[in-house]
Amino acid sequence: MSLIVQKFGGTSVGGLDRIARAARHVKRAADAGHRIVVVVSAMAGETDRLVALVRAAGADYDSREHDAVVASGEQVTAGLMALRLQSMGLPARSFQGWQVPIVTDRGHGRARVLDVEPGNLAAAIDDGAIPVVAGFQGVTGEGRVTTLGRGGSDLSAVVLASALGAERCDVFTDVEGVFTCDPRLVAKAHKLDKITYEEMLELSSQGAKVLHTRSVATAMNRRVRLQVLSTFTGAPGTLVVDEDEIVEQQVVSGIAYSRDDAKITMVGLPDRPGVAAGLFGPLAEADINVDMIVQNISPDGELTDLTFTVAKGDLDRALEALDVSNATLGARRIEPDPHVVKVSVIGVGMRGHTGVAGRMFEALAGKGINIQLISTSEIKISVLIAEDYLELALRALHTAYGLDADD
Amino acid sequence: MSLIVQKFGGTSVGGLDRIARAARHVKRAADAGHRIVVVVSAMAGETDRLVALVRAAGADYDSREHDAVVASGEQVTAGLMALRLQSMGLPARSFQGWQVPIVTDRGHGRARVLDVEPGNLAAAIDDGAIPVVAGFQGVTGEGRVTTLGRGGSDLSAVVLASALGAERCDVFTDVEGVFTCDPRLVAKAHKLDKITYEEMLELSSQGAKVLHTRSVATAMNRRVRLQVLSTFTGAPGTLVVDEDEIVEQQVVSGIAYSRDDAKITMVGLPDRPGVAAGLFGPLAEADINVDMIVQNISPDGELTDLTFTVAKGDLDRALEALDVSNATLGARRIEPDPHVVKVSVIGVGMRGHTGVAGRMFEALAGKGINIQLISTSEIKISVLIAEDYLELALRALHTAYGLDADD
Repeated sequence: MSLIVQKFGGTSVGGLDRIARAARHVKRAADAGHRIVVVVSAMAGETDRLVALVRAAGADYDSREHDAVVASGEQVTAGLMALRLQSMGLPARSFQGWQVPIVTDRGHGRARVLDVEPGNLAAAIDDGAIPVVAGFQGVTGEGRVTTLGRGGSDLSAVVLASALGAERCDVFTDVEGVFTCDPRLVAKAHKLDKITYEEMLELSSQGAKVLHTRSVATAMNRRVRLQVLSTFTGAPGTLVVDEDEIVEQQVVSGIAYSRDDAKITMVGLPDRPGVAAGLFGPLAEADINVDMIVQNISPDGELTDLTFTVAKGDLDRALEALDVSNATLGARRIEPDPHVVKVSVIGVGMRGHTGVAGRMFEALAGKGINIQLISTSEIKISVLIAEDYLELALRALHTAYGLDADD
Repeated sequence: MSLIVQKFGGTSVGGLDRIARAARHVKRAADAGHRIVVVVSAMAGETDRLVALVRAAGADYDSREHDAVVASGEQVTAGLMALRLQSMGLPARSFQGWQVPIVTDRGHGRARVLDVEPGNLAAAIDDGAIPVVAGFQGVTGEGRVTTLGRGGSDLSAVVLASALGAERCDVFTDVEGVFTCDPRLVAKAHKLDKITYEEMLELSSQGAKVLHTRSVATAMNRRVRLQVLSTFTGAPGTLVVDEDEIVEQQVVSGIAYSRDDAKITMVGLPDRPGVAAGLFGPLAEADINVDMIVQNISPDGELTDLTFTVAKGDLDRALEALDVSNATLGARRIEPDPHVVKVSVIGVGMRGHTGVAGRMFEALAGKGINIQLISTSEIKISVLIAEDYLELALRALHTAYGLDADD
């Protein structure tokens, strides 16, 4: 009998009726002869409620106590799911992170999983039970509760699937799978049956919300087959797998976008050695991540324009840091622009094809969309454009790369 | 430095403002040079919310999962209290039952404490920290979470105080202490400065709500000095201590009452050997507790009336069981009466005094109150009367035993 890990996110367990629906997915898989390990998030909204309590209790809160409080959300759902499964005749029992144990480092609030000891779960499975594990949480070697940070429950599911040698890790969510593009913006977007780990990783890090980057990276490193599927339909979703499992590879598999970036241009910056260090060093010290960077050729060899992006949430802090640096750097002015979006086309097929970037620039030019910044990786091309053109750009690119559903 | 355990109940931590007020009591004691261990209940209403979720998840619920879910309430409060104390400059940290550990048997939902290992708490205290322990919860030897049942957080505080050799266990609550009688019904009732364990035990088991019987019994067995005091004022409350600590002992220390009893009379019961067994055996099998019992003398040696009380909540089930039994027993009829109350006068001073019962009967007769049943113990006399006379009886007895505040 094969083992499957089934993970249900916050909206999939956001109330007793939804827990009951999720339990039916478990039962269906159990009835089909699979052994199952269930991983659950907190009910939708519960983690936010608990975090708000923590913040109100003390401004500079101790992240260890934050974790002790916030982890209670998953504990409740795990117990309720176990009870629901029991009421359907399935011998389920809940496990908290420390009961597995899922051992993490002491990085409270965003702990890293060091070890999953599979013995207790394996014993429960051998007894015919269905373990229901509280996601998002672990325990340090010293016995203190940790949480794994954003996307933590997905990560719990992946590390458990790896430790137990599961055939697959099913991530039940509120969408049908991974789409070629956001279907709310591109009507012709369609669900992908399969996608590679690397593409999924790029899609996640370039703005697709369906899976968190850490979970995908961990699944890739540990070769855990992931499936993203809908908790509402239970129909086959998207498999995230190794490249060699995908027979016919598109050049571009998907298009992601992000509204989370802001652009900063240093206008009239003296072009001399050490300028970049004087600019980006203080930003790094302020823990501000810089993503895309482009420096114009300085026509007279003296003054240049330097443009880059930071997270929109960091913009104010970045401008403060730059104001300080610029006393020495001497740019004529600093121009912030939060009204930009980043659009990325992604596909492992790019490796063997030429002209992929060209087709992108052509498609955007055809719609009169100006490209402000470009960055590329082996399987990704990202461009920064004015935010008003987002939908237009996505649709043009979706068509240009032959992704439209009716093609 | 002496160690004090401070326990805060649900209303004392029912919101962040109340947690802040409770934290000020902790700080005051810490500033006075005491080492402190804090024990907290779940926020008022939270346990009920969680229990309702459990019940809705499955009718015949697994008490192990019930405990996993319900224990989360105290976990949240413990974390929030630790954070609040930290924000006041006190180095606090939370402990869940399994982190102490408070080891219990497997009687989920009403687990019995087997052992408290004080090492982890002692180490934290030696480090200068204030441990904030989630009350109401423990862990089995197999590592499953248990809850201790009603009054569980008080019990946690008492067993911790005992294991740590605390000088005192302060139970902060929404009343100023233990009163001679319920001040809502008897305006002249006054707070007692001290009361013996035995009296407190009788008061609790005869209806006083301020402390749960189990906690008092455990405190008595382990000789833990308890103080009941108000979380709103923090003023000295009532000390529950050994008899030899109390210099001047009243004959009667307090008067309790209970509305939780119902009376059943078996009218015209054939008076032959085996009747009592045939009556009370089936009730015991149905897990129905019988409290007061009186059998009339049968004038002709053939038929008798037998009257007894059961918990009001058990009345319907008791009548069903009696209907079955009576097919054999042959009482003429069964007369239930839920409109009764039990009034108890309690005092260790009764041991050395005569005429205590006589004064009770006189006082009640003086107000024309009929006594339906009587039961006594070494330090208690209880009578069952019609519920309409409750306030009148309490006030008459309060005066008769010299308890009125202006005496």
